Amino acid sequence: MKAFQDYYPENLSHCYGCGSRNLHGHRIRTFWDGEETVTRFTPEPYHTAVPGFVYGGLLASLIDCHCTGTAAAATYRAEGREMGSEPPLRFVTGALNVSYLKPTPLGPELTIRGRVKEIKGRKVVVEATVYAEGVATARGEVVALQMPETFGA
Amino acid sequence: MKAFQDYYPENLSHCYGCGSRNLHGHRIRTFWDGEETVTRFTPEPYHTAVPGFVYGGLLASLIDCHCTGTAAAATYRAEGREMGSEPPLRFVTGALNVSYLKPTPLGPELTIRGRVKEIKGRKVVVEATVYAEGVATARGEVVALQMPETFGA
Repeated sequence: MKAFQDYYPENLSHCYGCGSRNLHGHRIRTFWDGEETVTRFTPEPYHTAVPGFVYGGLLASLIDCHCTGTAAAATYRAEGREMGSEPPLRFVTGALNVSYLKPTPLGPELTIRGRVKEIKGRKVVVEATVYAEGVATARGEVVALQMPETFGA
Repeated sequence: MKAFQDYYPENLSHCYGCGSRNLHGHRIRTFWDGEETVTRFTPEPYHTAVPGFVYGGLLASLIDCHCTGTAAAATYRAEGREMGSEPPLRFVTGALNVSYLKPTPLGPELTIRGRVKEIKGRKVVVEATVYAEGVATARGEVVALQMPETFGA
């Protein structure tokens, strides 16, 4: 199954968080699950803060790219367009807010679930929650802004 | 000169963002500059979002660890204690909010400057700004919480 990120044009597929062509990066893959979006990601042993727990900056990164991907997919859907149809829709982050609800255990696969809160012109607000073994450990919100066509050209 | 992070006890020096013992991580180093704190960091070529610009998740990570380090140093200072004196003071992130003011060019060394907004019991609020070639490109705020003594033990 193709992930949202598989539809990004080649020149916009180098993001450290979600670019399929960034071999050093996280290469997250995001999918629809009904009205929600879902990404699964297993941190590396070195993605730690305090031993035994996941680094908060990684969680912020996962929330960030999960939400910008969700913003793109939701906008295609709202416009009744197939993902990947021209012109490409790609979003950058205007603001990222994360609350760390409890320590996230390092080891298990994490699930990030997203929900679109608002689509308004070129701005999409997406909320995401990180779960470890079914427990919500972090929650974030991203204000995603549609990228100017000239950006990355 | 010793950075704030050089005073962290060994078991708390593994953080991906600021742990001197995490060989895969960013190993940021933070210092006082008068009443402000400063970290300098040069992203790797693969820390990209759109080609030519720095990945926002990295900027969030730098702000995060810069601010928790600042929270520790400011608390030692407020208590009139030398950094590294026992018991160790170490902070975790309760909330992280970042506004991306403009694209951050990838290449030049970045400067992150921090300022303590509030010290209240075990909670310290720190504001940080990222500069590239003298231009502020991102601004963030961290609510840092003093780590329970049992954490990471």
